[in-house]
Amino acid sequence: MAEPKVNELMEKVVSLCKRRGFVYQSSEIYGGINGFWDYGPLGAELKRNVKDLWWTSMTRRRDDVVGLEATIIMHPQIWRASGHVDTFSDPMADCLLTRKRFRADQIDPQSGTAYHYSGARDAETGKMVAEAYAVLLPAGKPPESARKVATQYYQARGLKQVELEGERTEKVENSQRFNPENGSLLTEPRPFNLMFKTYVGPVADEDNVAYLRPETAQAIFAQFKNVLETSRQKVPFGIAQVGKAFRNEVTPRNFTFRSREFEQMELEFFIPPDEAVEALTGSVAKPAAPGHPGAPQRNWGWQLWHQYWVEERIRFYDSIGLPRTSLEEYWQKPDELAHYARATVDLLFKFPFGTQELEGIAARSDFDLSQHERCSGKSQGVFDEELRTAWGKLDEATRQRLSDSYFQHRQKYLLKAGVPAEQAARDAKEDAEGLAKGQYIPHVIEPSAGVDRLILGLLTNAYSEVTTTDDKGKTETRVILRFHPKVAPIKVGVFPLLKNKPELVAKAREVNELLRAHMMSFYDDAGAIGRRYARQDEAGTPFCVTIDFDTLGETPELKDTVTLRYRDDGRQERMPISALLGFLLERIR
Amino acid sequence: MAEPKVNELMEKVVSLCKRRGFVYQSSEIYGGINGFWDYGPLGAELKRNVKDLWWTSMTRRRDDVVGLEATIIMHPQIWRASGHVDTFSDPMADCLLTRKRFRADQIDPQSGTAYHYSGARDAETGKMVAEAYAVLLPAGKPPESARKVATQYYQARGLKQVELEGERTEKVENSQRFNPENGSLLTEPRPFNLMFKTYVGPVADEDNVAYLRPETAQAIFAQFKNVLETSRQKVPFGIAQVGKAFRNEVTPRNFTFRSREFEQMELEFFIPPDEAVEALTGSVAKPAAPGHPGAPQRNWGWQLWHQYWVEERIRFYDSIGLPRTSLEEYWQKPDELAHYARATVDLLFKFPFGTQELEGIAARSDFDLSQHERCSGKSQGVFDEELRTAWGKLDEATRQRLSDSYFQHRQKYLLKAGVPAEQAARDAKEDAEGLAKGQYIPHVIEPSAGVDRLILGLLTNAYSEVTTTDDKGKTETRVILRFHPKVAPIKVGVFPLLKNKPELVAKAREVNELLRAHMMSFYDDAGAIGRRYARQDEAGTPFCVTIDFDTLGETPELKDTVTLRYRDDGRQERMPISALLGFLLERIR
Repeated sequence: MAEPKVNELMEKVVSLCKRRGFVYQSSEIYGGINGFWDYGPLGAELKRNVKDLWWTSMTRRRDDVVGLEATIIMHPQIWRASGHVDTFSDPMADCLLTRKRFRADQIDPQSGTAYHYSGARDAETGKMVAEAYAVLLPAGKPPESARKVATQYYQARGLKQVELEGERTEKVENSQRFNPENGSLLTEPRPFNLMFKTYVGPVADEDNVAYLRPETAQAIFAQFKNVLETSRQKVPFGIAQVGKAFRNEVTPRNFTFRSREFEQMELEFFIPPDEAVEALTGSVAKPAAPGHPGAPQRNWGWQLWHQYWVEERIRFYDSIGLPRTSLEEYWQKPDELAHYARATVDLLFKFPFGTQELEGIAARSDFDLSQHERCSGKSQGVFDEELRTAWGKLDEATRQRLSDSYFQHRQKYLLKAGVPAEQAARDAKEDAEGLAKGQYIPHVIEPSAGVDRLILGLLTNAYSEVTTTDDKGKTETRVILRFHPKVAPIKVGVFPLLKNKPELVAKAREVNELLRAHMMSFYDDAGAIGRRYARQDEAGTPFCVTIDFDTLGETPELKDTVTLRYRDDGRQERMPISALLGFLLERIR
Repeated sequence: MAEPKVNELMEKVVSLCKRRGFVYQSSEIYGGINGFWDYGPLGAELKRNVKDLWWTSMTRRRDDVVGLEATIIMHPQIWRASGHVDTFSDPMADCLLTRKRFRADQIDPQSGTAYHYSGARDAETGKMVAEAYAVLLPAGKPPESARKVATQYYQARGLKQVELEGERTEKVENSQRFNPENGSLLTEPRPFNLMFKTYVGPVADEDNVAYLRPETAQAIFAQFKNVLETSRQKVPFGIAQVGKAFRNEVTPRNFTFRSREFEQMELEFFIPPDEAVEALTGSVAKPAAPGHPGAPQRNWGWQLWHQYWVEERIRFYDSIGLPRTSLEEYWQKPDELAHYARATVDLLFKFPFGTQELEGIAARSDFDLSQHERCSGKSQGVFDEELRTAWGKLDEATRQRLSDSYFQHRQKYLLKAGVPAEQAARDAKEDAEGLAKGQYIPHVIEPSAGVDRLILGLLTNAYSEVTTTDDKGKTETRVILRFHPKVAPIKVGVFPLLKNKPELVAKAREVNELLRAHMMSFYDDAGAIGRRYARQDEAGTPFCVTIDFDTLGETPELKDTVTLRYRDDGRQERMPISALLGFLLERIR
C-alpha cells in the first residue's frame, strides 16, 4: 500500500514544482534534455537561501574556515591524481545487434535457453563469418525466433543468404549478458567514465582533453597550499566551496535527485595526524559519548573531529527545517568504505522514492593531499614550529612509538598508491623523520552535501495538504509548503484588503517597501484575501500582512497596525507596523 | 611613458591578488591551465558580494523582475536558434608545415618576397606531388631559405630527394597568410566554433552533442513561457540570471578579463512592441533628455526602456564604488550593431590594459523569442486582454498604420531568418492580425554584465599606494584597496590592543561575535596594531575596531567604547560598542 502513495506524493511535488515555478525541465520547449533541471523564480530563491545559509554558517560565522571559488574545468592531471580518470566509471554493455547501450549491472536478469552459433556462411557466395553469437529465448519460444535474430546479426556483417553454423543450446538463469528487448548477446561490459569530456584550445586532440569536474572537492585540495599561504590560517582549518559539478549518469532518475548537472557544498577540514596531536598535547582525545562534543580542542584526534562535523551538519539541517528526527545516520561498514577512508557517515533522508543520502561526512586520512603531492611533485606538507618544539621534549619511547605509527601509515599509503616496496619504505622513513621536525601532510574530514537533493528534501518535507469543508459542505484541498522561514523563497506577503481603495493600496505599498529593503516580500492585490493567503501558502511564504481600514485609523487605537497571519496554523494577530520588521527579521535569520 | 606604468599597475594587481588570496591561477600545482582562474578566500567573498548586490537590486527590490537558475548544459537546438552553432566562431588558419594553429585575424602582418612552388618531384623514384606551396621571406633573406622550408614541406608528403618545381616569386605587403615564425603558407582561414563541446549520455556521437553555454541569456529565452505562466508577472517584466558561461577563447588574455570560464549577470527585460504601446496608451513616449527617465511608465517605447536600463546600470556601478565618471558610455554605430539589435550601449571602464567593455545594454527587438518560436515550433507570444480591448477602440487609420508597421517589422525579421518571401508575407500578415487580437512576441532589453571583469575593475579601481616616511627618514610604501564597504570582502577587523592580556582578548572576541552574526569580520591579535591595520588596508577592509584598556574601564567615561579606524584616511574615533553594529550596517548595506 505504501508504494502507490509514495509515488503519488512525488508526482504531486513534481507537479507543484512546475506549476509554481520551483523547478522546470531544462530546455522544455525543445523536448527537454534528460538529467537537467532548471530552477524557476521560487526555486532559484529557495536554492540561494540554502546556499547562503551554508556559506554563512561555514565561513563567515567561523574563525577556522575560509571560502574558495574555483573553476569547473581544471587541469586534467587533477583527475588522474584523484583516481577519477581510472576508476570513476560504470560498466556498460552494447547490444551486438542494435548497438543500444545498457548499464551492465542494471540489466533485468533474464532466464531461458541460449542459442549459440559458431558463425555463418553465405549460401550464395560461400563467404564465411566465423564470429560466435548467441540469442536468449524465454521458455516456450520456438527456436526459429532465435535463428531469425541470429540471421539479422550475420546479415549486418555482410552475408546475404545466411546459413547459421554450429548451433547449440544452453540453459541460462538470471543472466545480465543478453538484451532484455530482443534476446541478442551483449558485448562484454566495459568501463564507461562518468566525467563529461571536452577539449580546451583550438586543437581537439588528446593533449587538450579536459573534464567538467565531477565534484568540487579536488579544487580545494589543488589550492590547499595557496590558501594556507595567503589566508593566515593554520591547521586545523577548513576550506569551503559551493559550485556546480557534472556526472554523465547513464540513468538520471528521481527528478532532481540524480541529475547530470548538480551543485555541491563541500568542506575540506584539514587536521594534524593523530601522532602530531599526541606529540603536541600529550594524548589524543577520543569520542566519549554520542552527540555533539562541544567546542574544538587541541587534543582532538580525527575521530572526535569526525564526530564534531557529523553533529555540526545535523545541527545545520535542523536549523533549516529538517529536524534531527527526519534524518538517519548511517555509518558505513568497513567493507563499504573507500580504501583511503577511515570512517564515513551518510546522513540519510526519507525521500518519497526511498531513504537516500543527503550528505556524506568522510574521514579521508591524508590520501588526497598525498596523491596531489605525488602527482604534482609539489610538497603538500605543512610545517608546525610548535610540533617541532614539542617533539624535542618527548621521551625516547614515545618518539619511537609515534614515529613507528606514522611510518606504518605512510608506508601503507605509498604501497597502495603503487610505489615499489623499497622506495615506499625509504619515503615513509623520510616522512617519519619529517614529523620529528614538525612536518606532516594534513588529514582531512569532508562533509559533502548535494544542494539539489537537499532542495528536494526540503520540498517533500514541507509538502502538506489541508482539506477544509465550507458551510455548504463543499470540500477543498489546499497545498501548504511548510518551509522553515530561513529557507522560504518569499518571507512575507503584503496585501491591501481591497484593490480599489487607493489609501489601502498606498499604505500596503509603503509597508512592502519597508520590508523589501531587508527581505524577499511579495505584494499582491488580486482577488479575495483568502485566495491570496492560499497562493502564499502554496509558495511556502511563512507570514502574510494585511493592510485594512483599521490600519488607516478607522478604529483609532488600531491605527498603523496590520493583521499578521501565520502560514502553518492560519492564526492571525494584530501588530504595529513599527514592530513588523524586527519580528520578521528575528524569524528569517 | 604611459604604457610601462600601466603594465606596472597590472603586475602589481596580479601580484597582490595572488599574495592576498583574491585570485589564483587554476590548477597551479600542475602548471596551470590557460584561461582559467580561481578565486581565493578574499576573492570569493568579493565576488559573492557583487553577485548578491546585483541579484538583490535586480530581483528582490523590484516588483517586475524574477530570478532563474538554469543549467549550463542545455538542448543543443537552443544554440542553433541563437545562431551560436553557425556563427559563434573565430577564423583559424594552420601552418602547412608544423600544423600550429593561429587566429587568422590576429596574425602580425608580414611583408617580403613570397616563393611559390607548383609542386615537387622525387629525384630518385620520379614520384610527383602536384600540390602548390609557398614560403614568405623577409627582404634580404637568400632564396635558399625558402627552398629549404619548401623541401621540408614536400618531404613531409613522402618525397625523399626533393626537386622543387615551378618556382616563382611575388612581392607581398602586410599579408596574414604566412606563419610569422617560419614563413610557411597557412591553410585558408576556417571558422573555429568557440563553444566547448561534449557528449551527453553513454554514446559519444553526433546525436548526443551538447555545448557548455557561451552565455546565460538563452536559458532565459528558452524558459520565458514557463516563467510567464508561473510567476504572476505580465509584460513588461524581466528575468534575471547569474551563472557560469564558457568560451573556448583562442587567446585568453589580460588576467581574468578574457578567460575561458567566466560568470555573467544577465537580465532580459521583456516589453511590448511600440505598436502595442501606442494602441494601449495613445502614443509612444520617447527619450526627451539625457539621464535617468524616472519610474517606468506604461507609454514607454523601447527607446525609453533602453535609456532607463542604461541609467539603472550606471547607478548600480556607482552604488558599488565605480563612479559614473569612471565609466564611458559607448553607443554602437549602426554598422557595429548585430543585425537584430536596434541599439546597444557599451559601458566601458578604463582598465590598465585599455578602455574595455564592462557591460553591454542591448535593445534586441523580438529577435530572440521569435527565433525560439520558429525553431521549437512552440508559441512564444503573449496575449494581452487590455491590448485587444484598446485595439477595438482605435480609429481605422491608426489601426492600419500600427498594423502595417508591425507587419513590416515581422516580415523583415522573417526574411532575414531565411523564410521564403511568400511564406514570410503570409506569416507576417498573421502576426499583424494577431496584434489586433492582443497577441505579440515581446521585445527585449538586455543588460549583460561580466562578473569577472567587474571584479577586475573593482580591484584596479581600488588599488592605491601610500608612501610614508618615519622620523628616522625611512620610507615605506603600503597598498590600500579602497573598496566600497558594500563590496569589501571583510567589513571590519577586530583587534585587542595586546594579545597577552586575557581581558582584552575576551572583550575583543565578544565584540567580534556581536558583529560576525551580521557581517564578515576578521579577528586578529598578531603583531603590532599598525601592522594589523596595514594588513586590513591591503585586504580592502573599510573599518577596524580596537579594544584597549579604556574599553575595559581604565578611563571610566570611556568604558565600553572602542577605537574605530577608517581605512581611507586613517582617521580614528571613539565609539560605544552599543553603537557599532548600527554604524557598520548602515555603511555596508
